[in-house]
Amino acid sequence: MTLKIGVIGTGAIGRDHIRRVTKSLAGAEIIAVTDVNQQAAEAVIKEFKLNATLYKDDVDLIQDSRIEAVFITSWGQAHESSVLKAIEAKKFVFCEKPLATTAEGCMRIVEAEMAYGNPLVQVGFMRRYDSGYKKLKEAIDQNTIGEPLLMHCAHRNANVAERYSTDMAIHDTLIHEIDVLRWLINDDYVSAQVFYPRKTKHALPHLKDPQMVMLETESGVMINVEIFVNCTYGYDIQCEIVGEEGLLRLPDEAHVQVRKGGQIGKEIGMDWQERFAHAYDVEVQDFIDNVLDKGTVSGPTAWDGYIAAVTADACVKAQISGVKETIELAQCPDFYKKEKPAAKVVY
Amino acid sequence: MTLKIGVIGTGAIGRDHIRRVTKSLAGAEIIAVTDVNQQAAEAVIKEFKLNATLYKDDVDLIQDSRIEAVFITSWGQAHESSVLKAIEAKKFVFCEKPLATTAEGCMRIVEAEMAYGNPLVQVGFMRRYDSGYKKLKEAIDQNTIGEPLLMHCAHRNANVAERYSTDMAIHDTLIHEIDVLRWLINDDYVSAQVFYPRKTKHALPHLKDPQMVMLETESGVMINVEIFVNCTYGYDIQCEIVGEEGLLRLPDEAHVQVRKGGQIGKEIGMDWQERFAHAYDVEVQDFIDNVLDKGTVSGPTAWDGYIAAVTADACVKAQISGVKETIELAQCPDFYKKEKPAAKVVY
Amino acid sequence: MTLKIGVIGTGAIGRDHIRRVTKSLAGAEIIAVTDVNQQAAEAVIKEFKLNATLYKDDVDLIQDSRIEAVFITSWGQAHESSVLKAIEAKKFVFCEKPLATTAEGCMRIVEAEMAYGNPLVQVGFMRRYDSGYKKLKEAIDQNTIGEPLLMHCAHRNANVAERYSTDMAIHDTLIHEIDVLRWLINDDYVSAQVFYPRKTKHALPHLKDPQMVMLETESGVMINVEIFVNCTYGYDIQCEIVGEEGLLRLPDEAHVQVRKGGQIGKEIGMDWQERFAHAYDVEVQDFIDNVLDKGTVSGPTAWDGYIAAVTADACVKAQISGVKETIELAQCPDFYKKEKPAAKVVY
Amino acid sequence: MTLKIGVIGTGAIGRDHIRRVTKSLAGAEIIAVTDVNQQAAEAVIKEFKLNATLYKDDVDLIQDSRIEAVFITSWGQAHESSVLKAIEAKKFVFCEKPLATTAEGCMRIVEAEMAYGNPLVQVGFMRRYDSGYKKLKEAIDQNTIGEPLLMHCAHRNANVAERYSTDMAIHDTLIHEIDVLRWLINDDYVSAQVFYPRKTKHALPHLKDPQMVMLETESGVMINVEIFVNCTYGYDIQCEIVGEEGLLRLPDEAHVQVRKGGQIGKEIGMDWQERFAHAYDVEVQDFIDNVLDKGTVSGPTAWDGYIAAVTADACVKAQISGVKETIELAQCPDFYKKEKPAAKVVY
Ligand SMILES: NC(=O)c1ccc[n+]([C@@H]2O[C@H](COP(=O)([O-])OP(=O)(O)OC[C@H]3O[C@@H](n4cnc5c(N)ncnc54)[C@H](O)[C@@H]3O)[C@@H](O)[C@H]2O)c1
Ligand SMILES: NC(=O)c1ccc[n+]([C@@H]2O[C@H](COP(=O)([O-])OP(=O)(O)OC[C@H]3O[C@@H](n4cnc5c(N)ncnc54)[C@H](O)[C@@H]3O)[C@@H](O)[C@H]2O)c1
Ligand SMILES: NC(=O)c1ccc[n+]([C@@H]2O[C@H](COP(=O)([O-])OP(=O)(O)OC[C@H]3O[C@@H](n4cnc5c(N)ncnc54)[C@H](O)[C@@H]3O)[C@@H](O)[C@H]2O)c1
Ligand SMILES: NC(=O)c1ccc[n+]([C@@H]2O[C@H](COP(=O)([O-])OP(=O)(O)OC[C@H]3O[C@@H](n4cnc5c(N)ncnc54)[C@H](O)[C@@H]3O)[C@@H](O)[C@H]2O)c1
Repeated sequence: MTLKIGVIGTGAIGRDHIRRVTKSLAGAEIIAVTDVNQQAAEAVIKEFKLNATLYKDDVDLIQDSRIEAVFITSWGQAHESSVLKAIEAKKFVFCEKPLATTAEGCMRIVEAEMAYGNPLVQVGFMRRYDSGYKKLKEAIDQNTIGEPLLMHCAHRNANVAERYSTDMAIHDTLIHEIDVLRWLINDDYVSAQVFYPRKTKHALPHLKDPQMVMLETESGVMINVEIFVNCTYGYDIQCEIVGEEGLLRLPDEAHVQVRKGGQIGKEIGMDWQERFAHAYDVEVQDFIDNVLDKGTVSGPTAWDGYIAAVTADACVKAQISGVKETIELAQCPDFYKKEKPAAKVVY
Repeated sequence: MTLKIGVIGTGAIGRDHIRRVTKSLAGAEIIAVTDVNQQAAEAVIKEFKLNATLYKDDVDLIQDSRIEAVFITSWGQAHESSVLKAIEAKKFVFCEKPLATTAEGCMRIVEAEMAYGNPLVQVGFMRRYDSGYKKLKEAIDQNTIGEPLLMHCAHRNANVAERYSTDMAIHDTLIHEIDVLRWLINDDYVSAQVFYPRKTKHALPHLKDPQMVMLETESGVMINVEIFVNCTYGYDIQCEIVGEEGLLRLPDEAHVQVRKGGQIGKEIGMDWQERFAHAYDVEVQDFIDNVLDKGTVSGPTAWDGYIAAVTADACVKAQISGVKETIELAQCPDFYKKEKPAAKVVY
Repeated sequence: MTLKIGVIGTGAIGRDHIRRVTKSLAGAEIIAVTDVNQQAAEAVIKEFKLNATLYKDDVDLIQDSRIEAVFITSWGQAHESSVLKAIEAKKFVFCEKPLATTAEGCMRIVEAEMAYGNPLVQVGFMRRYDSGYKKLKEAIDQNTIGEPLLMHCAHRNANVAERYSTDMAIHDTLIHEIDVLRWLINDDYVSAQVFYPRKTKHALPHLKDPQMVMLETESGVMINVEIFVNCTYGYDIQCEIVGEEGLLRLPDEAHVQVRKGGQIGKEIGMDWQERFAHAYDVEVQDFIDNVLDKGTVSGPTAWDGYIAAVTADACVKAQISGVKETIELAQCPDFYKKEKPAAKVVY
Repeated sequence: MTLKIGVIGTGAIGRDHIRRVTKSLAGAEIIAVTDVNQQAAEAVIKEFKLNATLYKDDVDLIQDSRIEAVFITSWGQAHESSVLKAIEAKKFVFCEKPLATTAEGCMRIVEAEMAYGNPLVQVGFMRRYDSGYKKLKEAIDQNTIGEPLLMHCAHRNANVAERYSTDMAIHDTLIHEIDVLRWLINDDYVSAQVFYPRKTKHALPHLKDPQMVMLETESGVMINVEIFVNCTYGYDIQCEIVGEEGLLRLPDEAHVQVRKGGQIGKEIGMDWQERFAHAYDVEVQDFIDNVLDKGTVSGPTAWDGYIAAVTADACVKAQISGVKETIELAQCPDFYKKEKPAAKVVY
């Protein structure tokens, strides 16, 4: 029993997921690919010796009746249209973030999925599959630190490409915190504000860097996230949750300790692919397993994609306005409601 | 050669400094004490077998011509008057924080000291003498991380007494960060804003806890300080400085590692006296040594006391207003100007 | 292209490798199984819905011409015979440790493989695939700490089953250090000595626990390994290498930091399956990839299996004699010689 | 009330204790000094502006009736004679290690002190006053890890002077472990063995470095101590105690964490003076306080000095013989018996 997958978009992450499915994970096969850049798609077929049909576009690929699941790894702007087509064709969808570039677009997907009547779509927020974040989540759900009150987070990249712009700090960087932090504490955001500290000399003139985002949730949890994409020293993801009974901190990666030349040190990685390599594996295997074994998807939903879109929009608005912007979400449909963890009891 | 000291106020910290001078430090002797509670003063004389005169008030004590230095460890409201009298009598002064309860009061001391013409006053901001903060300062002055851009700090107490009020979070708690952070980065504050996250159930109804203070400096450094005085788990002081070339973090205290019952753990202390015990020793020894050996004082000045007062006032205003409050400082007189560390060169 | 695998022995680790190949890894399929306990084998087929033939014994299974690789996960005593049959049938072999229970048995396999003329056998020493050990190896090969001089290691289990005997401390516990430590430093052992410290009250009367093994290598590196299988607190693997220019230490696993109740703590796992889960995955995927893509095996060889057997025998002898026992190895055939890392240059 | 001290030997450590008493500690005064190098003694008087008599030798100094306590900080060979004279004169003695260079010499001091009838002598084993070791001791006495079974220790210096010889690894380096380890676990040694790992290229031809010492105690605890005095990277003191219920590890010193250039690092100090600076202060203050307040000494006794001498002799013998050497101690006189901590109860 092998899951038959078609991939739309064979760029960086598309190629990586194809490699993953083909060389690292169990239970699935890439049987079709497409890309507006057909040569890119062809090259990937060759590289991984795929036994796959090359389609001219997503429409054709989705129509291939052998295909059970579609991976959407094209540019963000193209996601909505492909997702809607896939839902229409009753295919399972693994869609890289963003689900759609607008809240309205996300809502259209939500409605299409609800109209179909069963979960089909998983959004590629892979941090939920990182072992550190999973342990944070477990600890919170087990009430290890009581009710969360505050979070201190940082998202630091050593550097970014020239085309990286101030708003990408929200759409491409903060977006991962937007998804994972509310998931961690089972809460939703109500407002966002953005502050600009002193700018690093390592940022190009068009980029504000670092930035500090302050998010507030329904239950009053206050979250500050430092975004610093020219920190030079490494790819560093920090997350600290302060609760009524204690504090949790995301661990640094395990690295060999070196004692040498008057220093006790360990490495810190420089890129996100490496940092979250295992999370991507677990994420995609989980998608495959759910579809194959249970005929459904778990993981981040279209609704999570919608919330990320609304929140990111508010953050970008706050980047420009300089003031606190309200985050107004539609009512969560029953279709997407998860059971909250049982009432917490301090032990 | 022994420094002759008179102590005004023999409460908690007064008694502790007397013990320190008598039982732990070199070069000084307590030869006079006073307290509005005369019995308290008498008890301390007995406890430490001091060969000291008990005076009825600060006026009498300061007049004792044998006394070379005065320790002012009475309640905050009483400090200004005692400091001014001591300056008038040309005595060296070690004054516990606050120097005075108002900016105007601090300014009167500044002017009196300048009128006298030589430094006489040291304010009891002991964190500057903590080995962790000293190493942070050294690293910054040696340009280890380039220009500072952001700071993330936390000041957490396990719990507080019932009388602890929301504004004490500024005057008694944040006050130490107010002094030490600007000293670390050779900068001054320009604004303050206060945020209230979800309240812990462990705080009494009259107290807002935790609080989050956001300070900005002249050069644009943005500092967030979490104040959380019912964190339950320990006395925890965190300080992280993010610079253009890297990051510095104040170390936790060294404690024995225990591996037991599925856990790798170490203790975290519960009280500030213990956490900063060594810093107090170094601070007071430094005062004694400077006066004895060089006839002057180093360490936090009356001007530092003035800045702390202005900044704390702005923070309290911000606690009430909820908006960003400007911090306006008088021009720093040449008398108090320190040479800045040499222009930084990244290595 | 899928590697067709037959499994001999569907006990604990056999079942786990079947699960791994079927549910976690890419490129292979279990198409046949056998076990002296036929019901156990049948149960595993059912559990993982394998499309696999159940054979009555290893002879029959190996003869199945579709099978390209054989996993030997039966009891240790049965390994040699199955490995020899598989080599005879020109199948690739992944054999759990031990390769054989005697040095002579291992040598027979070595000779059979050399007679065949190409590498066929990989021994299941999975630590070489653990990310921590891999980083240690890289650091040593890159000469980060110059020439190794000393190693301090510990292998601790929370507890063991009643049937665990004193010599199993060598054959089942130390065996992993025996393989991985010489691999780390590109060296071979010349002697072994065993010491018995004070016995823990948690060990049953028939078991000496803890034990301390001292190994010496050709180049004079001295290694002490603490074996402590009733340490109660967790499964704890320590490895420290002291070199001429510095020191390397195997990291503890990354776990969430918790600050609570006067403690800063993190979890330490209780079992080895969890500790080395990822290493097993990488190990078996590496076997599959090498066979599929390159038609060979890499990883621990039959020669490594031979060395482990000789060394373990000397350690058991030393357990009984109490004195230093010499370890005498046959000359390494060219067939098994690996290129040593290039001459080390201190940087 | 000030303790009047005379100092015999104003070399490195003598000068440092004089500085300590004069500039850092409370309650004592140096009123007399002597040194076979009279100019050295004179220079120290000048440097610290001591109001002290310069004596021509220890005989004259000890006779000064004002002197209440004698610090013996001359070369090791001169200690015994000065200690005996001081006991005869009924002076308190703080004697740097070694108490005497032979077991017999130590025993003569033990007998002289017992003849006098009250404790007079404290030996300068300062590690007992280090906060890390003190916390280890507390944890053991509180039975945190049950009965100790094994200890892993390391004593590493970045480098040593040319005159440092193989036996000094015992007399000047291991000596501190010899004292502090048995104190930690309330036990005595019964045997010693020395192993020589591969030699570092950084050691001069006449020096064996590193060395590995294996000590066994009465209760069967097995201790291995790595001595490595050309480790190049820092001054590194490690101590790990493995008990029936868990493990304790001496902490590294607290240092600022730096994240920079792909590394997370912190400093490790290069010299022992700095590492144990605070321990020396606490040690000497403790001597002063005990003599002044209670008319006695606590801390390492003449008997501890005797045990250190016997143990060190056995270790040197073992360095030469290569075999396990027995350590035979005289019966501990009641005079020196400390109450053992109450019977341990596991919690
Ligand atoms: N979850 C994560 O951590 C993560 C990481 C990287 C990228 N992403 C997301 O994945 C998506 C792809 O990113 P990338 O880095 O691979 O970009 P990329 O530019 O490397 O690849 C995108 C590919 O999609 C193709 N494409 C564009 N429009 C298409 C269309 N309509 N039909 C078919 N192919 C089309 C392009 O030709 C290109 O080959 C983005 O939305 C990005 O945000 C997520
Ligand atoms: N630097 C620090 O970390 C630190 C720590 C604790 C206290 N303090 C400061 O030290 C001061 C004293 O605090 P405390 O905790 O010792 O308070 P406390 O109430 O224990 O002691 C104050 C003492 O001053 C006496 N006193 C009050 N007014 C007097 C006057 N006019 N003349 C003489 N005696 C007078 C009181 O009778 C009392 O005994 C406060 O300003 C406090 O903010 C600083
Ligand atoms: N690399 C590691 O970390 C690791 C871990 C566990 C076990 N092992 C090794 O794997 C082997 C199996 O261990 P286990 O824990 O799975 O034991 P187990 O007893 O759970 O399983 C062994 C299975 O082999 C079967 N068997 C025995 N002889 C057979 C034969 N001749 N033909 C077919 N089947 C036979 C038994 O019936 C049993 O089902 C052992 O050699 C052990 O040392 C290695
Ligand atoms: N506890 C520790 O950590 C520690 C550290 C360093 C030294 N020590 C010990 O302290 C002692 C001194 O060591 P040091 O490093 O200061 O040596 P040093 O050579 O620097 O000083 C010794 C001094 O003693 C003087 N001296 C020698 N014989 C004398 C005598 N009979 N009378 C008077 N003066 C005499 C010498 O002239 C010299 O000035 C040694 O026994 C050493 O082992 C202990």
